[in-house]
Amino acid sequence: MSSVFRASTRLRSAARLPAARALSTTAGMRAAEKPYFPDEPTAPSVSGTIPGPKNQAAAAELDEVFDVRSLNMLTDYNQSVGNYIADLDGNKLLDVYAQIASIPVGYNNPHLKKVAASPEMASALINRPALGNFPSSEWGHILKTGALRAAPKGLDQVFTAMAGSDANETAYKAAFMYYRQLQRGGPEVEFTEEELLSTMKNQSPGSPQLSILSFKSAFHGRLFGSLSTTRSKAIHKLDIPAFDWPQAPFPQLKYPLEDHVQENAAEEQRCLAEVERLIKEFHNPVAAVIVEPIQSEGGDNHASPAFFQGLRDITKRTKVLFIVDEVQTGVGATGKFWAHDHWNLTSPPDMVTFSKKAQTAGYYFGNPALRPNKPYRQFNTWMGDPARALVYRGIIEEVERLGLVENTRITGDYLYGGLARLAEKYPQHFQNLRGKNQGTFIAWDTPKRDQFVAKAKSFGVNIGGSGPSAIRLRPMLVFQKHHADILLEKIEQIVQVL
Amino acid sequence: MSSVFRASTRLRSAARLPAARALSTTAGMRAAEKPYFPDEPTAPSVSGTIPGPKNQAAAAELDEVFDVRSLNMLTDYNQSVGNYIADLDGNKLLDVYAQIASIPVGYNNPHLKKVAASPEMASALINRPALGNFPSSEWGHILKTGALRAAPKGLDQVFTAMAGSDANETAYKAAFMYYRQLQRGGPEVEFTEEELLSTMKNQSPGSPQLSILSFKSAFHGRLFGSLSTTRSKAIHKLDIPAFDWPQAPFPQLKYPLEDHVQENAAEEQRCLAEVERLIKEFHNPVAAVIVEPIQSEGGDNHASPAFFQGLRDITKRTKVLFIVDEVQTGVGATGKFWAHDHWNLTSPPDMVTFSKKAQTAGYYFGNPALRPNKPYRQFNTWMGDPARALVYRGIIEEVERLGLVENTRITGDYLYGGLARLAEKYPQHFQNLRGKNQGTFIAWDTPKRDQFVAKAKSFGVNIGGSGPSAIRLRPMLVFQKHHADILLEKIEQIVQVL
Repeated sequence: MSSVFRASTRLRSAARLPAARALSTTAGMRAAEKPYFPDEPTAPSVSGTIPGPKNQAAAAELDEVFDVRSLNMLTDYNQSVGNYIADLDGNKLLDVYAQIASIPVGYNNPHLKKVAASPEMASALINRPALGNFPSSEWGHILKTGALRAAPKGLDQVFTAMAGSDANETAYKAAFMYYRQLQRGGPEVEFTEEELLSTMKNQSPGSPQLSILSFKSAFHGRLFGSLSTTRSKAIHKLDIPAFDWPQAPFPQLKYPLEDHVQENAAEEQRCLAEVERLIKEFHNPVAAVIVEPIQSEGGDNHASPAFFQGLRDITKRTKVLFIVDEVQTGVGATGKFWAHDHWNLTSPPDMVTFSKKAQTAGYYFGNPALRPNKPYRQFNTWMGDPARALVYRGIIEEVERLGLVENTRITGDYLYGGLARLAEKYPQHFQNLRGKNQGTFIAWDTPKRDQFVAKAKSFGVNIGGSGPSAIRLRPMLVFQKHHADILLEKIEQIVQVL
Repeated sequence: MSSVFRASTRLRSAARLPAARALSTTAGMRAAEKPYFPDEPTAPSVSGTIPGPKNQAAAAELDEVFDVRSLNMLTDYNQSVGNYIADLDGNKLLDVYAQIASIPVGYNNPHLKKVAASPEMASALINRPALGNFPSSEWGHILKTGALRAAPKGLDQVFTAMAGSDANETAYKAAFMYYRQLQRGGPEVEFTEEELLSTMKNQSPGSPQLSILSFKSAFHGRLFGSLSTTRSKAIHKLDIPAFDWPQAPFPQLKYPLEDHVQENAAEEQRCLAEVERLIKEFHNPVAAVIVEPIQSEGGDNHASPAFFQGLRDITKRTKVLFIVDEVQTGVGATGKFWAHDHWNLTSPPDMVTFSKKAQTAGYYFGNPALRPNKPYRQFNTWMGDPARALVYRGIIEEVERLGLVENTRITGDYLYGGLARLAEKYPQHFQNLRGKNQGTFIAWDTPKRDQFVAKAKSFGVNIGGSGPSAIRLRPMLVFQKHHADILLEKIEQIVQVL
């Protein structure tokens, strides 16, 4: 109970990797009370309408060269601090969207400033290596003291990538190569002439018609392989060719959970049965199942630990790989470093992908057979970015130093309690409140979602939605009780004017 | 004739983008003689065998957590300078491979050091934005003074990405959306209910069975869409599902070019006819043709400007898009900033993709209709990395300040002349010498290619191969005549011991 990395360091040899520094729960408690950013604004400040005149003028100028139709605000990062984001007109908003859930330790974090100013960073920026060929002599050390220090338990290897999409796609590639290796009878079995020739024509057996199973409403990225597993919204997928891969239903739980225990358990069993049926019957054989611990873009859809243990059991039994996509849930947001730590799995996932709050990306794995049987099968020029790997290490250090996973757990419980009270008071605005005991990874449905999100800015809050009708909270890990108090107050003010 | 960006700035309004600083040809000439890096070693130095003991020990340690089977050397970037790469045992090699053609202005370039130490860089590193939603107020300025300052002529827009693979894949996505929009009858035509429903199942018509046409031996990346257009080596493709997309033959020219003029022209016509036939007849309609100006991974295969003009004509006539993949050829290596500047096309490509020497990635385009008709169709969380965009800007500044495109043209001509003399002296070791008037983008075939590359290290040269039997030269843009002299001397020494 003494370390923020307890779950992830339990299986790791102390001789091989530095042990996570022990932090007492008191440190976490204290951290939850004392402000991490003493120079943060004490409250949001908004003057005039948003977007203001400077923002509008700058957006028109940017539009000459860069599509701005998805623009939220032109941001003044020099004036942004901690949990507060500043726009070009001087407005300062409490940010509980955090760059689509990807800023972990606050704007202009002082520790990351030091990381950015380090000689190592300068070298990583200006002498960018092809990591598979010419890693710096420090690369192993950076991984061991960074990404791997926080690795999910049981997974002590990493393949580094650039962002969530290619993290997932390289994991899929590893899965396909592994699947075919099992079929062939082992890593020593050579490729046939037919395979070598057919793959150059994109044809089977060299380019086999295998598949990845994902879930309805899932989001796993937007490149061609990852998009074929994304099932969130039509606008993400339209007009783009896709692989003929299967989708299983994701449990649609009823809230409050305690009032629908048996019904929800039955729903999860129904979905698991369908997963097993698809693995056994789908015409393009399934090499791996990928799932998000909480479907994020798809609407903050949760399932129970029993459901995920069920997935682990089915994938073990059917010999397909189990990939957990922690791109949005990872790095502390759910009150554990990895969301799948909540599940107490009997054996770890085969691969866990990460990005966003890690500020770099890749997949963790443990089974050495997931390294392809020959070099250059899983390879590209850069294979990630050591500059961003250094940032991830700095984030891990900051998470550890400040006890930010515990802070997020404590603040999340506090925030959830406040939202539950608002839901009682304004039931029409708070439906299916979810994310209890999941840190600050909290959401609810509301019929006036888009108005809520738009209106929030004038109240000084930057907030996002997910799925068709959810408000999703994605504050940073430095979000504390006093921020929660402000957020709750603002949310109440917003629903009162809707 | 006065600017290094002559070709690319010709079409740009001076009022809108800063004009490239005029540099006299004299500056380029002078630069080719005076060393850019006065503190560079004057020659390679190697002691003992490579890999040395420190390298071997560190590789074994790295292998615990990171696949090292593609390792070339553990690099000491602190000791690397200019064109010289240092390994962990203190060896200093003349580097004409340059991180798989991706380092442009020398290791530890002083100007890039300043860029790395700038407050803008620190902010980009620690306050990483979701660029589509929350770009910094400086983002437009960074693009206009950076990536777009060197944009190919006629292409004044950019979509930013992370690396070559996703640069190509997002270009493919833009092509598919554009193609379907033409079919529908314009940007205002709404998606049908059938499209909206079928795409959620990865089925046509919402997920249409369209294709991208690429060429035999092409390399366009290794994610699922880009890998479906890559046709370089089976090891890149085996076991990975691929789209049923067409490949056309790429001209196989005979050397010396001046002795096979008619034969080569006929070969190019044959390939063009096949492109046109595939566009008209392939069962999955072709939305775009993608081509490298020089097939790089595939073996340094060249074609004439007439061939590329032919491609432009066919794609215009058949209303498919023409994408030029300048990931490896772009940013000066061929003696022009963009290799396709050699072609004098009658109209520019529809999209040009870049990565590698740009140290960031994306695609340029000019036609506003290539912005999808609705927001969020071409979108992801990060959409590139402003830290790397700042590095690209610094590279462009350095290219301009030092006249590096011209230097590369001049040095390349000099180097090619030296290699032609070696080819006369050792014809068995130099076959199909190619890359004349293509800057330092030079290659030749040799029956003992792998031995040559392996042996080169002990002579103090870091060099790479491409395709089945080519040596490819990929020096940096700061490679000068005195480096060429050393390289020629070492190459002769190597072939003498093969």
